[in-house]
Amino acid sequence: MERTACGTLRETHKGEKVLLKGWVQKRRDLGGLIFIDFRDRSGIVQVVFNPEVSKEALAIAESVRTEYVLEVEGEVVAREAGTVNEQLATGEIEVLASDVRVLNKAKTPPFMIEDETDVAEDARLKHRYIDLRRKEMQDTFYIRHQATQVIRNFLNQDGFLEMETPILTKSTPEGARDYLVPSRVHDGGFYALPQSPQLFKQLIMMSGFEKYYQIARCFRDEDLRADRQPEFTQVDIEASFVTKEDIMTMTERMMTAVMKEVKGIDIETPFPRLSYEEAMERYGSDKPDTRFGLELVNISSIVENSGFQVFKNAVTSGGQVSAINVEGQAEDFSRKDIDKLTEDVKVYGAKGLAWLKVKDGELTGPIAKFFEGEEASSLKEALNAKDGDLLLFVADKTSVVHDSLGALRQKLADRLDLIDHSTFNFLWVIDWPLFEYNEDDGRYYAAHHPFTMPAAEDEQHLLDRPETVQAEAYDIVLNGYELGGGSLRIHKRDLQEKMFEALGFSKEEAEEQFGFLMEALDSGAPPHGGIAFGLDRLIMILANRTNLRDTILFPKTASASDLMTNAPGGVDESQLEELSLKLQKKK
Amino acid sequence: MERTACGTLRETHKGEKVLLKGWVQKRRDLGGLIFIDFRDRSGIVQVVFNPEVSKEALAIAESVRTEYVLEVEGEVVAREAGTVNEQLATGEIEVLASDVRVLNKAKTPPFMIEDETDVAEDARLKHRYIDLRRKEMQDTFYIRHQATQVIRNFLNQDGFLEMETPILTKSTPEGARDYLVPSRVHDGGFYALPQSPQLFKQLIMMSGFEKYYQIARCFRDEDLRADRQPEFTQVDIEASFVTKEDIMTMTERMMTAVMKEVKGIDIETPFPRLSYEEAMERYGSDKPDTRFGLELVNISSIVENSGFQVFKNAVTSGGQVSAINVEGQAEDFSRKDIDKLTEDVKVYGAKGLAWLKVKDGELTGPIAKFFEGEEASSLKEALNAKDGDLLLFVADKTSVVHDSLGALRQKLADRLDLIDHSTFNFLWVIDWPLFEYNEDDGRYYAAHHPFTMPAAEDEQHLLDRPETVQAEAYDIVLNGYELGGGSLRIHKRDLQEKMFEALGFSKEEAEEQFGFLMEALDSGAPPHGGIAFGLDRLIMILANRTNLRDTILFPKTASASDLMTNAPGGVDESQLEELSLKLQKKK
Repeated sequence: MERTACGTLRETHKGEKVLLKGWVQKRRDLGGLIFIDFRDRSGIVQVVFNPEVSKEALAIAESVRTEYVLEVEGEVVAREAGTVNEQLATGEIEVLASDVRVLNKAKTPPFMIEDETDVAEDARLKHRYIDLRRKEMQDTFYIRHQATQVIRNFLNQDGFLEMETPILTKSTPEGARDYLVPSRVHDGGFYALPQSPQLFKQLIMMSGFEKYYQIARCFRDEDLRADRQPEFTQVDIEASFVTKEDIMTMTERMMTAVMKEVKGIDIETPFPRLSYEEAMERYGSDKPDTRFGLELVNISSIVENSGFQVFKNAVTSGGQVSAINVEGQAEDFSRKDIDKLTEDVKVYGAKGLAWLKVKDGELTGPIAKFFEGEEASSLKEALNAKDGDLLLFVADKTSVVHDSLGALRQKLADRLDLIDHSTFNFLWVIDWPLFEYNEDDGRYYAAHHPFTMPAAEDEQHLLDRPETVQAEAYDIVLNGYELGGGSLRIHKRDLQEKMFEALGFSKEEAEEQFGFLMEALDSGAPPHGGIAFGLDRLIMILANRTNLRDTILFPKTASASDLMTNAPGGVDESQLEELSLKLQKKK
Repeated sequence: MERTACGTLRETHKGEKVLLKGWVQKRRDLGGLIFIDFRDRSGIVQVVFNPEVSKEALAIAESVRTEYVLEVEGEVVAREAGTVNEQLATGEIEVLASDVRVLNKAKTPPFMIEDETDVAEDARLKHRYIDLRRKEMQDTFYIRHQATQVIRNFLNQDGFLEMETPILTKSTPEGARDYLVPSRVHDGGFYALPQSPQLFKQLIMMSGFEKYYQIARCFRDEDLRADRQPEFTQVDIEASFVTKEDIMTMTERMMTAVMKEVKGIDIETPFPRLSYEEAMERYGSDKPDTRFGLELVNISSIVENSGFQVFKNAVTSGGQVSAINVEGQAEDFSRKDIDKLTEDVKVYGAKGLAWLKVKDGELTGPIAKFFEGEEASSLKEALNAKDGDLLLFVADKTSVVHDSLGALRQKLADRLDLIDHSTFNFLWVIDWPLFEYNEDDGRYYAAHHPFTMPAAEDEQHLLDRPETVQAEAYDIVLNGYELGGGSLRIHKRDLQEKMFEALGFSKEEAEEQFGFLMEALDSGAPPHGGIAFGLDRLIMILANRTNLRDTILFPKTASASDLMTNAPGGVDESQLEELSLKLQKKK
């Protein structure tokens, strides 16, 4: 007999003989009968063992426990009125078992397999094969499968070729820390696991393939945060002879397909575009969540001559003052509440959080006395402040103002429950700076990577005014998460050389590390550009999860361990000898 | 204007204005005109620069060289009669250029970009981005893309979920040599790159997903042969509640889809099945190429009392005598030729190669005198020997007989040009032994891997007669290549423990290395099985290539180097320090 999937049974199957294979979710003994919630990948159906149907089956059913693996034959029957289970897709019927075989036994699981779990994550990771049986995990990986196929089908139809780039590749010091793989054959030689296929996909363009994609594994040996994993999956795309507009439009069409097919949602295109500068000024973030307001307003020009020295000094010393109007919340935030918010912004380097409330058309609060007349009305007008509003200010260096108010904005949105979790706000952040200055190292780094094309009009300032140079780069943001980003790439050798020079590479260093790229740029390299985005994070958002680990089948902990297999582990001395390596004690 | 693909232009486009972007394949100056073979991913079209159309365009065209990247505007015109190029899909038309822009220059390529190349492979690998522009390379990677999508679509429709397993995993000493990745966080800890996702896919079954696949990167740090790469790609499949028959039938349907969609060929199913024993006896190989005859015939029973001591002794000492009838070739193989064949079989440990020829119904040759009367006629009958046939014999240990005649058979087929390269012979090899005895180590190893299910009737002999135990395993063979293989897996803990015991593991060693698997087997593990096959090798056969490296975008050399990027390379002392490692001189 062919197997039937448990979760597909409906009233229309009444009277059919079926063969089920799956797991005992739950067994209940009731009045001489045994009821089993029987589970397979497709769902759950109730199986009933009745001595009038088969005493033998009932006897076996008596011996089974949770998570036993069974094969059940029986007949689909309608449930009696009053016992219909509306929570269950199969709730109108049950299967009356005539025969049952135990395919495998199971020890009592270390935790229950149920939707809402409060089991410690370590236990879930150690027994991942049990955790993954929970419906919300099954659903997440179904979404992952589905989204992956939608993306592939879209790219295939758009003429992209799926291609594989090496995992054993070359270490390059620029960027995050590499995972290294010692070579047994080349003394002192190491491969590195790729942080992304960036150079290889550019070389694919120089190989004339024109449109490439890969769902690629990438690796970074960084200290992990909640939303980082040592290995992660990236949808990696590159095309030749394209404009920024081409890549952005293609990405929008792809995301539209994903949202439609996975979530059944129509999203609007084109996505809004914010310049980096505007994103920072209005949201204090380069990945703004636009599902709620609480926008930052720069009031520097209003307060540059203020009697409130803190504001005035911030502006005159080159910084700025920005504010958020927390509308209608003046009454709900006590001084203690605001003190707590002040602690929050201090984490980001802010020296303090100034505040005003609006009552009967007047500004109130300890610093209200500094704002009178025109300054007060300009302030109210700029912030659109009305009675009952709470105004929060940070006056500091620009980066501190942005970071602290950006974080505060997110915190307030959560506290005030301003976020509609059913919406998906995509947007682009464009007009990025090409370089970032690192004060510790006293040098410029590439804000994206050293292969990003500078804006044509800024090219001349690569060496003399690098801080002013904009990049032909674009990031895609969804609900406050950076989904991914891309750029046009440098496709001419002389510009690439100048870029390395701006990054402080000597000619020899550039040649040593990137000689093959330079040669390839000299071999007939087409103009090209692309994008890459994190699949794990996209799935996290699509599946309404908040923990990136829930979207990865066998993830690692914050200390990069696999608790199930106990990786990483020790190796034999002989394995190290073959690699000409010796362990040393950490200093 | 929208870009048009060069290779798509036909006579029907006559009169259309087009914008082309691509590479200069070749430039010819002829009677004041310039002709450029202009190439993009889709093919080649001839572009003509005529001073009567545009002097400016002609002037630019004069400056361009091979592999320059251009943007050309022009009009599609019919070629004059007599200048039509039938070798070219676009050969009936050409594009009369009205405008041209140089998008990038190119140095003279280190070798020509043409179909048939005799350039040294090292040069091709160093300048891989140039080698990949050749049409046969472009075609190979298009086939790779296409085959990959056919496989995925097939598996998706069959209800399989694509899932990703870790690349940073745990080292297990059983099997080939692992690539190791030192951990920065865990002192003395190492990850290993997976040789296959075997255990993870079994754990996915224990996680209740029932049908899994992955196009997975796998790694083996072995000394390389022509058909091995340190990293390779495997189509990895696993399913729960299945029989061997289910997996084999599914695989046959999948291969049918691949052959149909990629090659336009209908292949016959079910594929022939040979037991391991029959494959070895008839073809001297566990991956027989059945595109030609030259089968081995075991004549041991005929010669066990032979007057020819070499034959008799081989049989009585537990070995065997087998022969190949090289039909009609008696005249064409001189004694010198046969001496050469003898050298060939000695490589496989054979002490010699005996031969007979058939002439006028009689056996001739130096050893003919030993075979008379019934023995001679039995021999001729068994080998179906007719006048003009050459009979080749090896008498030795069974394994030597199989290996040497198996290799000889392949050699003869090449020499006699017996192979029809347009046919695709799939077959299954089944009934494998579960163990292989390694004489050097004096112990049994798992012939496939330690998780393979033994045949139910042999289970009782796991410990006392391991050499007799058969595996529930199957290999798929195509044209003499092992494409892949699979098995049902052990799904019960007690059997898995017995298996480890048979392999000489102590209880502690088994627990230490595979404790997590044993626990998972105890948690409600469903019966399951699967298959995996090498994508690189499949593509090699589909694309009619003979070098596996031609099917991998950026392959490594036989010493596991990437000649383009110079990986593996040295790393900074500080990187090693962070990993608590020190380099040692090789002993």
